[in-house]
Amino acid sequence: MVVMNCSRHLSYVQGRRSRFVAELKDFVRFPTISAQPQHAADLKRCAAWLADRLRQVGLRRVRVIPTPGHPIVYADWTDAPGKPTLLVYGHYDVQPAEPFAEWRTPPFEPTVVGDDLFGRGACDDKGQMFAHVKAIEACLKTQGRLPVNVKCLFEGEEEIGSPNLKPFVERNRRRLAADVAVMSDTRMLAADQPALTYALRGGLSFELEVAGQKGDLHSGNFGGALHNPLQALCEIVARLHDADRRIAIPGFYDRVRRWGGAEREFMAANGPSDQQILRDARAEHGWGERGYSLYERTTIRPSLSVTGVTGGYQGEGVKAVIPSSATAKLNFRLVPDQDPAEVERLFRSHIARVTPPTVRTTVRSFLAARPALIDRRHPVMRAAARAYEHGFGASPVFLRSGGTIPIVNHFQELLGAPTALMGFALPDDRIHAPNEKFHLPNFYRGIATCIRFLAEVGARDEEAPR
Amino acid sequence: MVVMNCSRHLSYVQGRRSRFVAELKDFVRFPTISAQPQHAADLKRCAAWLADRLRQVGLRRVRVIPTPGHPIVYADWTDAPGKPTLLVYGHYDVQPAEPFAEWRTPPFEPTVVGDDLFGRGACDDKGQMFAHVKAIEACLKTQGRLPVNVKCLFEGEEEIGSPNLKPFVERNRRRLAADVAVMSDTRMLAADQPALTYALRGGLSFELEVAGQKGDLHSGNFGGALHNPLQALCEIVARLHDADRRIAIPGFYDRVRRWGGAEREFMAANGPSDQQILRDARAEHGWGERGYSLYERTTIRPSLSVTGVTGGYQGEGVKAVIPSSATAKLNFRLVPDQDPAEVERLFRSHIARVTPPTVRTTVRSFLAARPALIDRRHPVMRAAARAYEHGFGASPVFLRSGGTIPIVNHFQELLGAPTALMGFALPDDRIHAPNEKFHLPNFYRGIATCIRFLAEVGARDEEAPR
Repeated sequence: MVVMNCSRHLSYVQGRRSRFVAELKDFVRFPTISAQPQHAADLKRCAAWLADRLRQVGLRRVRVIPTPGHPIVYADWTDAPGKPTLLVYGHYDVQPAEPFAEWRTPPFEPTVVGDDLFGRGACDDKGQMFAHVKAIEACLKTQGRLPVNVKCLFEGEEEIGSPNLKPFVERNRRRLAADVAVMSDTRMLAADQPALTYALRGGLSFELEVAGQKGDLHSGNFGGALHNPLQALCEIVARLHDADRRIAIPGFYDRVRRWGGAEREFMAANGPSDQQILRDARAEHGWGERGYSLYERTTIRPSLSVTGVTGGYQGEGVKAVIPSSATAKLNFRLVPDQDPAEVERLFRSHIARVTPPTVRTTVRSFLAARPALIDRRHPVMRAAARAYEHGFGASPVFLRSGGTIPIVNHFQELLGAPTALMGFALPDDRIHAPNEKFHLPNFYRGIATCIRFLAEVGARDEEAPR
Repeated sequence: MVVMNCSRHLSYVQGRRSRFVAELKDFVRFPTISAQPQHAADLKRCAAWLADRLRQVGLRRVRVIPTPGHPIVYADWTDAPGKPTLLVYGHYDVQPAEPFAEWRTPPFEPTVVGDDLFGRGACDDKGQMFAHVKAIEACLKTQGRLPVNVKCLFEGEEEIGSPNLKPFVERNRRRLAADVAVMSDTRMLAADQPALTYALRGGLSFELEVAGQKGDLHSGNFGGALHNPLQALCEIVARLHDADRRIAIPGFYDRVRRWGGAEREFMAANGPSDQQILRDARAEHGWGERGYSLYERTTIRPSLSVTGVTGGYQGEGVKAVIPSSATAKLNFRLVPDQDPAEVERLFRSHIARVTPPTVRTTVRSFLAARPALIDRRHPVMRAAARAYEHGFGASPVFLRSGGTIPIVNHFQELLGAPTALMGFALPDDRIHAPNEKFHLPNFYRGIATCIRFLAEVGARDEEAPR
């Protein structure tokens, strides 16, 4: 069987671009910040809106499924017997928008400026997942059918670590049974250079609280006589890296896999250069473990980022206070073959060991996720590569990502489905940061790519025409 | 000349306690938070109210004097030729009342519970300064005169560092010319143990900002490749103290005066014990420079407190962010013979030296104040001691304070007037904290003490009867 001709689908899309963008703006307008309890109703409303869209494009069995947290939206179309089943994953929740003052347009009033749509979630992940929805619409509205069986699984808790998705997948293995999965929640290397992600780091986050005396004290009356908990916190955090910029937790590197020359050469040939990473980061200087490129430091090497510190007076000017406690938020990224549970044990005993007798420490953990690897030669990767060639006119590079998408591991382990990570985000789309945007040409090319991907997966057992 | 007999004054006060408390409640009711611009009109109204009270007690040349910030209230009575002139200082502004939720009674609805008047400013400094006003009233209403010349100087900006008071004193040296000064804005050691403060530390505050890459970044994509500014800030702050818990700035201790055995023995005999300081601090462990008691560490030794750190995600849960910058607020307390300007130079060059090439640092300075010392044997101190003996039935202990009151230095340097720091606050009056209170028996004893103090200063050239 050959890959279907996509030209009708593409002209369907061509004529409806402004409606698609208007719908995407409606989607972005929901402040679906999963981390902030006050937005729970917004997530519920957004899930209902999304379910309506899925019904309108012609998907079936559309369900908004409550969870102990934010709802999952499910829909499918399974009238292609004998064809593979594709699980399309995405998430409709977004990162917090703080700091608000740095947004040039309000985060939840999506605004088109030139070729870009600005708004929290425009890129991560509403815009990217919506490309799949619009591709499905184009197929169903022009041909009345899809070239593969499709199951859509859209969650509202990705940005808080998907606490309810893994149990849902576990309980619904039969309903979700699929040969392969796809998600678009990763980056391209550049606007003209698509990328397929074949490795993800794992993640593990902690909140470290340092507590001292019972209440806040005046820094004049007591300064010099007590171990200031905020100072102690800085001292503990400063000792989490050693002078060689490695993570200074005994045993932390024991299970880190050493990659051979072939993989490192592949990475050097295909991955971003140090200069490119610094340019993307808008940074002047690299930093980190000796003997590794910046690309390697962010992919095959683990990292520890201080993602927040709060303690003492936060307002304008000064206040003469010794705070009674202070808190740091820490985010580890893990690589094969590190095990989050083991790293947590190492971290907790390290903190216990380095806590001075003058203060008390408490550790709370969040978001444990294993690293993931997908075989670059798997057919779904080849299908994705060909789809990119059609949608973007360029073959994708195969990249490792420093990020973490826990569900990739769950799909592999629970459903046996490898995931094609087909990102449409640009390096300067500022995901998780103020002024997040989605490059609208990538939205249109993304839809075309998704259309082709459906066709390629449907034809995957035979040679696809080029 | 002998000290005047005060019995008529005391019975005047005795019969008017409830009116005095009612007036003090009116005073506390003004939300005179100098740090919060929205309260500027409240400070203005309070200054006018205070001026009215001063007129009613019989003071002359009562003026509300505008400044670039909040007004100064001035009044005097100078009909005692040949007698010394006493400058009475106080402040009618108060600290912010946050966190509101922790107040058991509303901060600006003064409430008497048992023997205590609760409200923001009840103790710091409205109640304490009002004791002087009521003492003046008692003298003028019973005898038509005061035993000394008196000039009252009440400001509305003490809690924000008195930015306009020093220039005012400089411009008005003649109007403010005085032999001695008094203020009641310090603590007693215990309810039955008054204290005279004869030393104050200086102060110097900084905001230290560490900046890295241009914007916030995702800690998955970039973690391990860049020097996280928040981590760098912790590393710099951690290096401000050395392993011996001394401030690790080269040259910082060069000008710190070494006190001889006699002074240290006096301090050990008169000052609080380590246990007492830990109890007051509600702390389990002391900390700091070896070879010094906690009392010494907070008075004759300088200190550096981290009073605030802000960087990265501050909300609930976690956010995978590498912030582009992070800020620490730092508060130095200085001792004789340290010079704030020199310490600022040392600090700035230290920060420049320890800033790694991977980040940039910026230092902003606030609130430079020199340390102050008042000779314990000065006649004004002896007058204050005798006044306490009359008012509280106990001789005061002579204490050093770790705090900073910049105006004490200005009075010394600009007017040549040493200041008697006659506090009526109790250690548990919770100044600067929720549920601030003033112990009303201390208000009445304070008034009696102030009456006697006027008499003692008026008699200071001769032997006063005991």
